[in-house]
Amino acid sequence: MLLNIIRTLAFLLVLQSLQVNLYAQNMRLRDHGIEVGIFKIGKHNAITDVNGVKVGHTTLVGGDSIRTGVTAIVPHEGNIFQMKVPAAIYIGNGFGKLAGYSQVEELGNIETPVILTNTLSVPIASDALISYTLQTPGNEDVRSVNAIVGETNDGWLNDIRGRHVKQEHVISAIEKASAGEVGEGNVGAGTGTICFGYKGGIGTSSRVIPKSEGGYTVGVLVQTNFGGVLEIGGVPIAKELNNYPFKDKILNDVDGSCMIVVITDAPLDARNLKRLAKRAIMGLAKTGGIASNGSGDYVIALSVAEENFVPYTSDSPVQEGKFLKNDAMSPLFLATIEATEEAILNSLFAAETMMGRDGHTIQALPVDKVVEMMKKYGRVK
Amino acid sequence: MLLNIIRTLAFLLVLQSLQVNLYAQNMRLRDHGIEVGIFKIGKHNAITDVNGVKVGHTTLVGGDSIRTGVTAIVPHEGNIFQMKVPAAIYIGNGFGKLAGYSQVEELGNIETPVILTNTLSVPIASDALISYTLQTPGNEDVRSVNAIVGETNDGWLNDIRGRHVKQEHVISAIEKASAGEVGEGNVGAGTGTICFGYKGGIGTSSRVIPKSEGGYTVGVLVQTNFGGVLEIGGVPIAKELNNYPFKDKILNDVDGSCMIVVITDAPLDARNLKRLAKRAIMGLAKTGGIASNGSGDYVIALSVAEENFVPYTSDSPVQEGKFLKNDAMSPLFLATIEATEEAILNSLFAAETMMGRDGHTIQALPVDKVVEMMKKYGRVK
Amino acid sequence: MLLNIIRTLAFLLVLQSLQVNLYAQNMRLRDHGIEVGIFKIGKHNAITDVNGVKVGHTTLVGGDSIRTGVTAIVPHEGNIFQMKVPAAIYIGNGFGKLAGYSQVEELGNIETPVILTNTLSVPIASDALISYTLQTPGNEDVRSVNAIVGETNDGWLNDIRGRHVKQEHVISAIEKASAGEVGEGNVGAGTGTICFGYKGGIGTSSRVIPKSEGGYTVGVLVQTNFGGVLEIGGVPIAKELNNYPFKDKILNDVDGSCMIVVITDAPLDARNLKRLAKRAIMGLAKTGGIASNGSGDYVIALSVAEENFVPYTSDSPVQEGKFLKNDAMSPLFLATIEATEEAILNSLFAAETMMGRDGHTIQALPVDKVVEMMKKYGRVK
Amino acid sequence: MLLNIIRTLAFLLVLQSLQVNLYAQNMRLRDHGIEVGIFKIGKHNAITDVNGVKVGHTTLVGGDSIRTGVTAIVPHEGNIFQMKVPAAIYIGNGFGKLAGYSQVEELGNIETPVILTNTLSVPIASDALISYTLQTPGNEDVRSVNAIVGETNDGWLNDIRGRHVKQEHVISAIEKASAGEVGEGNVGAGTGTICFGYKGGIGTSSRVIPKSEGGYTVGVLVQTNFGGVLEIGGVPIAKELNNYPFKDKILNDVDGSCMIVVITDAPLDARNLKRLAKRAIMGLAKTGGIASNGSGDYVIALSVAEENFVPYTSDSPVQEGKFLKNDAMSPLFLATIEATEEAILNSLFAAETMMGRDGHTIQALPVDKVVEMMKKYGRVK
Repeated sequence: MLLNIIRTLAFLLVLQSLQVNLYAQNMRLRDHGIEVGIFKIGKHNAITDVNGVKVGHTTLVGGDSIRTGVTAIVPHEGNIFQMKVPAAIYIGNGFGKLAGYSQVEELGNIETPVILTNTLSVPIASDALISYTLQTPGNEDVRSVNAIVGETNDGWLNDIRGRHVKQEHVISAIEKASAGEVGEGNVGAGTGTICFGYKGGIGTSSRVIPKSEGGYTVGVLVQTNFGGVLEIGGVPIAKELNNYPFKDKILNDVDGSCMIVVITDAPLDARNLKRLAKRAIMGLAKTGGIASNGSGDYVIALSVAEENFVPYTSDSPVQEGKFLKNDAMSPLFLATIEATEEAILNSLFAAETMMGRDGHTIQALPVDKVVEMMKKYGRVK
Repeated sequence: MLLNIIRTLAFLLVLQSLQVNLYAQNMRLRDHGIEVGIFKIGKHNAITDVNGVKVGHTTLVGGDSIRTGVTAIVPHEGNIFQMKVPAAIYIGNGFGKLAGYSQVEELGNIETPVILTNTLSVPIASDALISYTLQTPGNEDVRSVNAIVGETNDGWLNDIRGRHVKQEHVISAIEKASAGEVGEGNVGAGTGTICFGYKGGIGTSSRVIPKSEGGYTVGVLVQTNFGGVLEIGGVPIAKELNNYPFKDKILNDVDGSCMIVVITDAPLDARNLKRLAKRAIMGLAKTGGIASNGSGDYVIALSVAEENFVPYTSDSPVQEGKFLKNDAMSPLFLATIEATEEAILNSLFAAETMMGRDGHTIQALPVDKVVEMMKKYGRVK
Repeated sequence: MLLNIIRTLAFLLVLQSLQVNLYAQNMRLRDHGIEVGIFKIGKHNAITDVNGVKVGHTTLVGGDSIRTGVTAIVPHEGNIFQMKVPAAIYIGNGFGKLAGYSQVEELGNIETPVILTNTLSVPIASDALISYTLQTPGNEDVRSVNAIVGETNDGWLNDIRGRHVKQEHVISAIEKASAGEVGEGNVGAGTGTICFGYKGGIGTSSRVIPKSEGGYTVGVLVQTNFGGVLEIGGVPIAKELNNYPFKDKILNDVDGSCMIVVITDAPLDARNLKRLAKRAIMGLAKTGGIASNGSGDYVIALSVAEENFVPYTSDSPVQEGKFLKNDAMSPLFLATIEATEEAILNSLFAAETMMGRDGHTIQALPVDKVVEMMKKYGRVK
Repeated sequence: MLLNIIRTLAFLLVLQSLQVNLYAQNMRLRDHGIEVGIFKIGKHNAITDVNGVKVGHTTLVGGDSIRTGVTAIVPHEGNIFQMKVPAAIYIGNGFGKLAGYSQVEELGNIETPVILTNTLSVPIASDALISYTLQTPGNEDVRSVNAIVGETNDGWLNDIRGRHVKQEHVISAIEKASAGEVGEGNVGAGTGTICFGYKGGIGTSSRVIPKSEGGYTVGVLVQTNFGGVLEIGGVPIAKELNNYPFKDKILNDVDGSCMIVVITDAPLDARNLKRLAKRAIMGLAKTGGIASNGSGDYVIALSVAEENFVPYTSDSPVQEGKFLKNDAMSPLFLATIEATEEAILNSLFAAETMMGRDGHTIQALPVDKVVEMMKKYGRVK
C-alpha cells in the first residue's frame, strides 16, 4: 500500500515535471493557418492576456486509471475574499455540479479563485477553497466562503469513483498559477476529458476589440468534455471523419459537458456579465456542440476592472463605480463568441491520445487529416 | 386623404395577389445544393411539416414607406383557448417587446395563435388576438386572454411610427393560415426586416429525427432582422463580401432582432420545451448572429402532441400525460439547431431588394455571388 | 347610440369631478389607530413621498357595467424615454399580462411611465404609451418603445369584454398625475377590483428608514384584486368574519391578482432593485395573500436617484454611478415589506361597496366591525 | 491532543444518547393553545406526515465551541438515485452555499437525500452523499451524483472554522432517519443556529388540505437562523420584547438564513413544485422574516407521489404520469404557507438557551412571557 503510494507519487512527480514540455509540443489552431473570427487575438491568445489573470494546473496521471486534475483560474493577485470580483454565471445546460452559483447570482461577485476539476471532486475542491481562504492572511475572522468550483465528468478514462483529487492538488494549482502561456490539452482539469469523440482538455484563447470600441480584452478558458457534430470554421469535420452521433442510436455520443470561464478587463456589472456569459454558449455552438441533455455547460464571467472590485469591509454604504453601458456591449459579445470557439478548438488540437481506466483509449483529433480537410475547404491561409 | 387611402388599398390588393408568386420565385438554400446539418428535412422543409400547424401572412406594402406585415402561426385547428398547447419561451436577448411571456412561463402553455409583427404594432396585434379569442364560438365567457405577439423592428424601411398594422390584418393572417408551403422572404412580419445588412424576412425549415430516436419532427419559423458576421455553413461570407460590423465604429450594424418559433410533435412538457427553445439560439449563432445588445431574440417553443393539450375546463384536478424523458432530448436539440440555422438562411435567400422609408434601400443577399463562394469553399454538392 | 355615448360621457364627467371628494372621505388604516411595522411613514404615507413621483387616475364608472380605469405612476418630471430609470420586475405569480417585462430585465431600466389598468386593456394602454412617447417633444426619432403596463382582472364588476378603456384615458391619467396625496380605493385601475372577497382598489403607503441606515424613502402603490385569508396586523379577520376560501370547495375565492409598484430614492442598480421587488410579495403575504394559481402578482421596482438615470444618448460608453452596496439593503427590504402590507390594507379601508355588471355587488370591508375586532385583539392604539 | 479527542468523543456520545429526551421536553406552539392558519395538521404535525418521509439528526455538541450538526431528510425508502424524486428549488435570497441547485432546475428531480448542515461543512456533506450513493447496492456503475446539501451559518455559537462535521456524521443522520415524531430545536443542523435574536433550530409542521381539494398532505421542515421583527400569529412579539433590528444601527441583527424543505404527496411536476416552493417564503414572511441581504433562504420542494418517480434506467423514452393541474394548486400554496410559518415558530418554541464559542450565549425565546403576550392579544385558545 505504502509502496503503491510512493510509486504513484513518483509517477506524478515525473509527469508534473514533464508537463510544461508536454503541452508545449502541439501546435495551436492558428499555427496551422486556421483562423476563426474577425477580431485580433491578445499576446498569448490566452485568458491570461487579461491583465492580472493567472492559471495553474495540477495534472494527475497515475497507474492505469488515474487521469484527472485541477485547473485554477486566479482573477487577481490580491486577497480575493477581501477584494471581490464582479461576476455572473450563465447555465447553458445544468446537468452538472457547479458549486457557488446562487451567491454569485444574488450578490454579483466571486470571492475565491475559480477551480475546475472532475464531477465527483467538486466537494473536495470546495473544501480546499475554504481552507485556502480561511488560511489566507487577513481572513482570520472569515466564517463564510462561497467556493466556485466547476467540473466535467472524466469517468470514461479516469477512475472517478476513486476520488483521487485531494485538497493539496487544489492548493497547488492555485499556488502554481502564473501569467503568460497557458497549458492546453491533457492538463489539469482537462486531463481525462473527451470532446466530439476525440481527446478533449483545456483550451484557451483571447480577443482584443478595436480601440474605437474601447480596446478591451476578453479571455476565455475551457474544459472540453462534450459532444455534437464537430465543425471547424464551419467545415463539417465530423461528417468528413464519419464520426458523429445519432447514426446508430448511440445516444451517449453527445453527452458530456463544457466549463467555460470568460474574463474581461472591460468594466462590467453583474447584469452585463451575465449577458456576456450567455454568448459563450454561442461560441460553443459554432464548433458543433449542442448542449446535450447530459451536459453541464456553465459559463463563469468575471470583470477584473479594479475600480469595481467589491471590498469585503468599508466605511461607506455606497460604492462609486464606472460601468460600461448596455450600448457598448455588442463587440464584447462577439469577442466572447470568437474566443470561446477558438479555445474549444485549441483544446482539441492540443490534446493527445490517452489510455485510461479499463483500457479505454481515446484518440487525439487526427490533426494532420483535419488540416488536410481544412485545406480542401479553402480554410487554411 | 380618402384618395390616398384608396390608392394604398389598391396597391395592397395588387401586392397581396402577387404574393404567392413573388415568394415562389426564389430558390431556397437546398435548391442551390447547399446543406447544413445531418438530419433529414420534412416534406416541405417548413414549420408546417409538423402535423396540424398552419402559417398565414398579411403583407403590407404601400406607398413609399409602408413595408411591414403580420405572420400568424396557428398550432392546431381547434379552439386554442379551450385546448391550450404546452409551451415555453426562452429569451436570448431581451431588448424586445414580446407580449405574453410571464403567463407562459408560469402555466406552461399558450392559449392563442402566435403572431409576429413590427415593434410598435405589438399592442394592436395583442388587441386583435383578444378580439379573435373573445369572438371565437365557445369563448363567450372568457374574460382573460394571454396574447402571444413577437416582433422585430422594421423601422429602417418601414414607417413604423405610422403604426399601419390594424386589427383586421392580424385576423386576416390567422384566417389565411394554411398547411403546406410557407411564404418566405419579404412577406408578413418579414416584409421590412434586415439581416446581416441584407434584406431579411421570414424563413422556415424542419428536421425529422431518426425513427430510432423517436422519429419526431421539429419545425422552425424565423423573422430575421439581426446583425453579426454572416457565415453560411461556416463559410465566411461576410468577410468575403467585406460587409461586417466593428470595422469603422458602425455599432448599429449588429443591432436588430430575431423571432424564432419552434414547434414539435414530440410530447414535451414545458420544462423540456424551455430547454429546446434555448437551442434555437445556438442555431442562430451558427449563421454568425451574436445576439447584439439591441436585439430582441425570443424563442417560442410549442409541443403539439395532442394527448398533452390542456383543456380550459375539465372535471378532474389531475391530468394524465405521456412525456418524453430528459434522456431522449438530445436529438431534438440538434434538430432545433439545424432547422433554425437553415430557416435563417432561407429567409436571406428568399428576400428581395426593397426600397422603403426616406428612400432607404436594402439589397438582397447577392445569391449568385454567395453560391460562387460556397462553391469555392467546396460547400455545394 | 350617440345619445348613449353622450349620457355615458356626462356620467363619467360627474364621476370624475366627484372623485377627489369620494376618495377623501374614508379613513386610512392609521387613522383608526392601527399600525403595522416599525419604520416611520413619509409625509403623505404614499408613493409620492419619494421625491418627484406623481400619480394620476382615470376612473371609468358608467351605466350598469363600466367599472374600470387607469392609474399612471410617473417616476420623474422629465422625458422618461430620454432619461431612463433603473428598474426591475419580480414575478410573484405570472398568471397575468404585464407588458414590458423582458426589456426591463435585460437592460435594467424603464423608459415610460408605469400604467395600471384591467386585463383586456393592456394592449390599448400600451398603444397609448407608445403614442405618448412618440409625441413627447424630443422623441421625434424614436422607433422603439417599451411600454410598461400592469393589470388585474376586474371582470366581475366590470364589462371587461367591452374594453372601455381608450387611449385618451391613459394619456389623461399621465397628464393629471400629481405629487402629494394619492386617491385610494375605487379609483383608477382599482375601480372594479376585489380583495379578500371585499371591494379592493388602489392603496399606497411609504416608509422612511432611519438616518443611520441612509434615511431613504420607499413608496409603494398597489392595485388589489386578490384572495386569501385576510389578516390585519396578524389578527385573523377572515376567520372572525367567517369569510375565507377552501371551506366549501369555492376555489375561485382566492383567485385574482395584485400589481405592486415600489419606488425608492435609494441609489439601487437593477440587481438590487430585483431583490427589493421580491420583498413586496412578503408584505402581501402578511395580509393573508397566497399568490394563488390564478394570480398575476407583479412587482415593478424603480430607483429615482437622479445620478443613476440612464440617458438615451450620450458621448461616453461608460457611465459613472453611485450605488448602494448589498450590505446596506436589509432596511430597505423591511421598508418594502411594511409599506406593501399597509398599502394593501389602505386599499381595503378606502374602497366602498360597488354594484356592477349583471347586478354583481361587492361589499366594502366592514370597517367598523374590523376596527372592533382590532380593539378586541389589542391592536388599536 | 489524543486525550482531547477522546474527551470530545465521550462528550458527544453522552449528548447523542440524551438527545431524544432533550428535544422531547419542550411544548410546541399548539400545545400552548396557539394556532396559525385554517387547515388541519397531520398526525405528528411534522414533515414525516407525508407518507414514506424520514428525518434523522446528528447533533454535535462538544467542549466549549462545537455546536453544530447534520439533519437528513430522506424522501422514500428505496434507492433514491435509481428512483429519482420530482423536485424544484426556489431561492428566496441566495447569500448561501446550497449544493445541487442547477441540476435540479434542469432535470426536475433529486437523486440523493436532502442534507442540512453548517455553511463551511457543505463540501464534506456533499462528499458524504457521494460516498453514500456510490456505496448503495445497485449503484456500482454510478459516476455522477448530484448531492443536495443546504446550510445556515452557526458561526456565532459554533467553531465553524474548525469544520467539525465529518462524513460519518452525515451517513449516520441518514441511517438514523425515521418516520413519526421529529426532533426540534437544538438538534442536527439546528444545534447552533439563531432566529430573531433567540435560539433557533430545527422545526417542523404539516397541513392536510380538505378532501374536496384532493386531501393531500404538505410537510415542512426548517433550519431557522435568520432575523427580522418577530411576530407570532401577527402579534408584535419583537416590539413587546423590545428586541428588533435597525434601532441602533445593529445591521447584523437581521442577517442569517433559513433552509426550508417542503414535501407533498400531491403529484406535482417540477414546474408546480417550483411554484409551491415560492410560497414557503410567504410563510417565513408571516413570522417577521425579511430575507435580509445576508440570508441564504432556499426552499427545496419534493413530490413523493410514487407514480411520478423517475427511474434512472428504463426501456422507454416516454414516461406516463398523472400530474395535478395548475388550477388545483391554490390550496397547496396555502398549506405550504401555513406549515412553514408554524415550523419556524416550532423551532423557536423547542430551542433552548445555549452557550458556545468564546462564551457567546443565545437565550431561548422566553416562552412563558410570549404565551402571556399571546393571551393579552387574545390569541390563546
